[in-house]
Amino acid sequence: MSAGKHLSKGSTIPELPDDGMLRLYSMRFCPYSHRVHLVLDAKKIPYHAIFIDVSDKPEWLTDLNPLGKVPALQLVKETGQPALVESLIISEYLDEKYPENRLFPKDPLKKAQDKILIERFNPVIGAMYKMFVSPEVVPGAITNLSTGLDIFEDELQKRGSAYFGGDKPGMLDYMIWPWCERSEMLKCLLGNKYEMDKERFNNLLKWRDLMIEDEAVKCFYLDGETHAKFMKTRREGNPNYNMLVNPSKRQRTC
Amino acid sequence: MSAGKHLSKGSTIPELPDDGMLRLYSMRFCPYSHRVHLVLDAKKIPYHAIFIDVSDKPEWLTDLNPLGKVPALQLVKETGQPALVESLIISEYLDEKYPENRLFPKDPLKKAQDKILIERFNPVIGAMYKMFVSPEVVPGAITNLSTGLDIFEDELQKRGSAYFGGDKPGMLDYMIWPWCERSEMLKCLLGNKYEMDKERFNNLLKWRDLMIEDEAVKCFYLDGETHAKFMKTRREGNPNYNMLVNPSKRQRTC
Repeated sequence: MSAGKHLSKGSTIPELPDDGMLRLYSMRFCPYSHRVHLVLDAKKIPYHAIFIDVSDKPEWLTDLNPLGKVPALQLVKETGQPALVESLIISEYLDEKYPENRLFPKDPLKKAQDKILIERFNPVIGAMYKMFVSPEVVPGAITNLSTGLDIFEDELQKRGSAYFGGDKPGMLDYMIWPWCERSEMLKCLLGNKYEMDKERFNNLLKWRDLMIEDEAVKCFYLDGETHAKFMKTRREGNPNYNMLVNPSKRQRTC
Repeated sequence: MSAGKHLSKGSTIPELPDDGMLRLYSMRFCPYSHRVHLVLDAKKIPYHAIFIDVSDKPEWLTDLNPLGKVPALQLVKETGQPALVESLIISEYLDEKYPENRLFPKDPLKKAQDKILIERFNPVIGAMYKMFVSPEVVPGAITNLSTGLDIFEDELQKRGSAYFGGDKPGMLDYMIWPWCERSEMLKCLLGNKYEMDKERFNNLLKWRDLMIEDEAVKCFYLDGETHAKFMKTRREGNPNYNMLVNPSKRQRTC
């Protein structure tokens, strides 16, 4: 999936068929929106994606989605066509409402433990974010990133399965994937200053290779070079959301 | 419920009967721990509360609860006696594991909407926290608090019920209650500088009066004067966690 044009202030509201399909307000490079795309694709739930210029939001957005946030999932078949926000809340809603290919474990304890791990991924997100947006290597960020990832390497080792979800990706796999996919851009952004230690992250690197082949991941996958290209426009203060509207040929690795 | 002594560094691990009961690591004045006490009490789940001096944690804490966080719920009947952390994750786990007196709505949409409201309470928590810990009135904090509470006043009006959960308190009621209970201490801390507008918050004030009479709320209730007394010790840099171990007679309002 590439991306439609990101709609901005002054745009007209997109005309969508009255087909009752879910509507996801998204931004093509937003990792939190990415989570919801993954869940929808993993469950094969059809939906319309409406891409939003988050730096210059359309006026009509708050009529459909009062908080004006992205990601937001509008439920057009429900009374009042409510919109849900927050990637984790939307993802858990989808898992409860559409039980096909259940992503969270059924067991309340295992589910709670996976949720705690999703929370414990936040320091990894924080460290990566610093490395993505800063043109210089932020002191301590690589150490923080590696320490954060150790928890996930150990967990995968402990579980002894290919994925956190077992023999197929589950909610934990999909909730952390957007940042793992984006970690590939560090090679482009930092040159040789960052490479994942193949021994220290043996399980996680095998997991990453498998995840890239997952059908849901493939639907929304972008290579490190493309993510880096967007990030460079963002670092320059002029994020090019529409970079993929007429995509040029892209390499998978950079 | 008052409180046992808060255990600190150098303390011995408390001897608890091998009765399979849940063990909640808590701090008597921590609003996040308060959430879990409320859920346990609302569901009438028996548990042991172990109070922790969070400024000087016991060495043995991380053996039982590797993250050393409070609140933590240790499940002694489960293999490996795992401990869950994060008040919202623990509360949802309890609601799934112990379906008696279900607190979240069964409907996935209504449940997601209540979770979004719990998230939307965070600015209220932020504004209150500033007012609790600062000896001076922080500019803008009263406005931010009132604007944040407007959402909940409107929601209660829209739902047309006594509680957010309907005719009895539900998860949303209990998740926001710890800060609503503590709002009473603002009168003591700020003198006449803060009083909730009776017209603007008509529904919320009625709700508060009802909540104070709820059985689960009563189990762990402290009046505004007591909360303020603890907060003053905290402001002075020497929080008196054990203030209630030999409680003196307390007034309900100050």
